[in-house]
Amino acid sequence: MARFAAVVVAAGSGTRLGAVAPKALLELGGRALVDRAVALMAECGADPVVVVVPAAHREEFAAALRGRAVTLVDGGAERQQSVLAGLDAITDPAPPVVLVHDAARPLVPPDVVERVVGAVEAGARAVIPVVPVTDTVRRVDGDTSELLDRSRLRAVQTPQGFDRVTLVGAHRRYAATPVTDDATLCELAGHPVALVDGSTDALKITHPFDVLVAEALLARRANIPTESEQSVGDVRG
Amino acid sequence: MARFAAVVVAAGSGTRLGAVAPKALLELGGRALVDRAVALMAECGADPVVVVVPAAHREEFAAALRGRAVTLVDGGAERQQSVLAGLDAITDPAPPVVLVHDAARPLVPPDVVERVVGAVEAGARAVIPVVPVTDTVRRVDGDTSELLDRSRLRAVQTPQGFDRVTLVGAHRRYAATPVTDDATLCELAGHPVALVDGSTDALKITHPFDVLVAEALLARRANIPTESEQSVGDVRG
Repeated sequence: MARFAAVVVAAGSGTRLGAVAPKALLELGGRALVDRAVALMAECGADPVVVVVPAAHREEFAAALRGRAVTLVDGGAERQQSVLAGLDAITDPAPPVVLVHDAARPLVPPDVVERVVGAVEAGARAVIPVVPVTDTVRRVDGDTSELLDRSRLRAVQTPQGFDRVTLVGAHRRYAATPVTDDATLCELAGHPVALVDGSTDALKITHPFDVLVAEALLARRANIPTESEQSVGDVRG
Repeated sequence: MARFAAVVVAAGSGTRLGAVAPKALLELGGRALVDRAVALMAECGADPVVVVVPAAHREEFAAALRGRAVTLVDGGAERQQSVLAGLDAITDPAPPVVLVHDAARPLVPPDVVERVVGAVEAGARAVIPVVPVTDTVRRVDGDTSELLDRSRLRAVQTPQGFDRVTLVGAHRRYAATPVTDDATLCELAGHPVALVDGSTDALKITHPFDVLVAEALLARRANIPTESEQSVGDVRG
């Protein structure tokens, strides 16, 4: 039995990207986002890898995944239903740990995955990777706003890691309560959420702007010197 | 007399960029960040444009600004002292409105500048451009953390706009109170802060990663089709 299973959620519509096809089918460097996300999970040791897709696009997803060993599951109307459908598709012998990952984060470094899995194995029921917030952030309240203490803010990423039985229980209990991520469900069920270091590379592709960023990151990984690296070098020298 | 003056703060060290030279001298598409920030202010109508620079690098800044009509001022030990030094260099006849802008944000669209100036002219004493926060954000408190309501969070950008007399007064009164931005100083002095729409293009160059993003944005502006735009096109079609 593997150390962990993974549920990759790819059921989003991608309307903010101006696309008619699902966002996870968008290509980045010649490969669909979902293909990159699934490959990362598999390379890090996830088994099974369940991919939750929009039912109407199942064949396109199968094609984009190019024969990878995954379980394809039809998504629900809301993200929470999609995650639960994915969790239910993990058959026995089910690993004790499950990661829930967003297909729109195709470039997560493997060490982030390892930290998340390791923290669950060390006893945390719910683990999220986070990065510091570099912006000055205000919270609006009607016509006024207040400055928040930036040093205490963390941006939440995926994959999020869970004790599988705990997460399934939280999903069933709070199926009717809409939340923005799975860790929050566990918190509602009374389990504290543990934080581990994420990575700025683990960005989420939401706007066309993010595709540009992701391509720049890919180019850097491929060791193609970009203009910026030359410039940074000039300044250093 | 111009509608507004501008103080461009370029006194940061850029240590997070791994550079030994000041961050604002970093080149982006062949031009220093400070040159791009100053040109934007001048093109939007700022006069005078005061640039606050590290005293030890004054000549390099003069060279990077290529003869632009600016007032160069030596910065202080902290950002607040640098801004006040810049404000003090605005000589009579001083415009009623002043913008304080960070040289590390070289790609602010002109319409953001116009919205900020317009809101001050419409009566606000302190105006900041903001964008929605797309991340899920938690606030840590010791060993625990709490989810914040993302719909109420806004990331703060520059240029920030002010009634000049109000800002100078707030800087003198709270010179010993460290704050992260000028709007917060005005708030301390009892003036509410007004919010206008910023732009994702107005990103701040903090990490090497951000240089990649800025270059991708520049390439898009130059209408050079990047791989991502082709990919988005494929998905659309």
